[in-house]
Amino acid sequence: MPLQFIRSSLFASPKNLLRTLFLVTKLRSLAMGSYTASSQSSKLFFRQLFEKESSTYTYLLADVSHPDKPALLIDPVDKTVDRDLSLVKELGLKLIYALNTHVHADHITGTGLIKTKSPGVKSIISKASGSKADILVEPGDKVSFGDLFLEVRATPGHTSGCVTYVTGDGPDQPQPRMVFTGDALLIRGCGRTDFQGGSSLQLYKSVHSQIFTLPKDTLIYPAHDYKGFSVSTVEEEMLYNPRLTKNQETFKGIMENLNLAYPKMMGIAVPANMVCGLQDTTS
Amino acid sequence: MPLQFIRSSLFASPKNLLRTLFLVTKLRSLAMGSYTASSQSSKLFFRQLFEKESSTYTYLLADVSHPDKPALLIDPVDKTVDRDLSLVKELGLKLIYALNTHVHADHITGTGLIKTKSPGVKSIISKASGSKADILVEPGDKVSFGDLFLEVRATPGHTSGCVTYVTGDGPDQPQPRMVFTGDALLIRGCGRTDFQGGSSLQLYKSVHSQIFTLPKDTLIYPAHDYKGFSVSTVEEEMLYNPRLTKNQETFKGIMENLNLAYPKMMGIAVPANMVCGLQDTTS
Repeated sequence: MPLQFIRSSLFASPKNLLRTLFLVTKLRSLAMGSYTASSQSSKLFFRQLFEKESSTYTYLLADVSHPDKPALLIDPVDKTVDRDLSLVKELGLKLIYALNTHVHADHITGTGLIKTKSPGVKSIISKASGSKADILVEPGDKVSFGDLFLEVRATPGHTSGCVTYVTGDGPDQPQPRMVFTGDALLIRGCGRTDFQGGSSLQLYKSVHSQIFTLPKDTLIYPAHDYKGFSVSTVEEEMLYNPRLTKNQETFKGIMENLNLAYPKMMGIAVPANMVCGLQDTTS
Repeated sequence: MPLQFIRSSLFASPKNLLRTLFLVTKLRSLAMGSYTASSQSSKLFFRQLFEKESSTYTYLLADVSHPDKPALLIDPVDKTVDRDLSLVKELGLKLIYALNTHVHADHITGTGLIKTKSPGVKSIISKASGSKADILVEPGDKVSFGDLFLEVRATPGHTSGCVTYVTGDGPDQPQPRMVFTGDALLIRGCGRTDFQGGSSLQLYKSVHSQIFTLPKDTLIYPAHDYKGFSVSTVEEEMLYNPRLTKNQETFKGIMENLNLAYPKMMGIAVPANMVCGLQDTTS
């Protein structure tokens, strides 16, 4: 029941008023349902890391119940690779994968540098991105680390090769689920759709079909935040995202009129990120 | 058993070598014990928020099992008050307290502005700070919100009035515990001790007696981070904090030789923060 409907029907008739009050209460209690701000698993270790210049979040996940403590990094940044690898070492984790959600235009990925400094780590990106990496994933693929795994979902629209990684569904997997949305869905926002094969209609469909269909308490961890938010939930974004709560046509209009400047880093970052951030390597 | 000791004894004798290997293993498994990166409670709602200019973390906590959903904000910043209050409103929480860990020198607190925009909210700071606020807390005091509470611990050294807030100890309280250390203990660092009644020896004693005595899996949430870390644990800082793992004399030497610039905001922020960030109000 969309909020718009509730508002428009508010003063129609006494019967409708009662019905509306019931719906408002229901909606309010629904909004109250997804309060969990952290995910629990006896296996999962999780850290959120931030790169201030490009406002990028990097995520470190590991299965600490496994003897090897296998770990992965999502969306590492070249400038903070030493910080990330130092933390991995201090915690006694074994980094096995460095993943990207997409070919970033605002910073250089750290995956190539990580592979240089920590041989054995495999880089991962979507096949649809057209980039080089050790492993090219497709929708439905699983990225396993120990007994835990991430599921790959295609969420094009910001770029044509964007994917979203979702923690597994199952008794041993983290609850609530966690979704790493890249630039497809940001907290109270979304990535721009005006370059790199972007499409506002495609992004709208991606978010509604691949992210908003997840359980409402799923924790949303985006690739960026510019306002100081660290996490949101599917329910919160379905209620309060100022763009994606609109209908498809209105969303298209919003995205067409953002009038954003061309990204300063684009000419350097995109070609570099097609080859794991290192121009002189093949993966 | 400090790491230094283990290293120095490494090649002393075969017997010592065996003992050392045992200790290294023990230390390593100890370091592996505190992997939890989030706290669980059926009652607690928690969000970490960031103000980029001063690299300040603001924390939102609420008891969502209570009918009123009472909430509090720790170390709010004046520039992000609207963001914080908007989030509180969207989540249906009832903000009752706005707390400061100390009189900040690098930004203006949001507590006064919050009181103006959201009447009924009470400001809280330590009595030892010498500042004005609705409630002046002392060591051992409890700040209750619903069935949850924060315990006040005196942690002077960065300023003479610094306190640390720790989530309660008990069956209904969050596990692991969470500690909001202000500038007393930062992730792999600590606050400076060269003004506002600062004292390196006092800070050393505060951290070792009030924070490092907490359970090793206690999650550390500082008032600032400049490197993009979001959380640490007592165990991690006891093992890897480059300053506070040193002995008291070495720590004093480090703190005396930081050669930091005088904070740009100090002349404005400190007098303002003595009165909740609003020069023209009394609390």
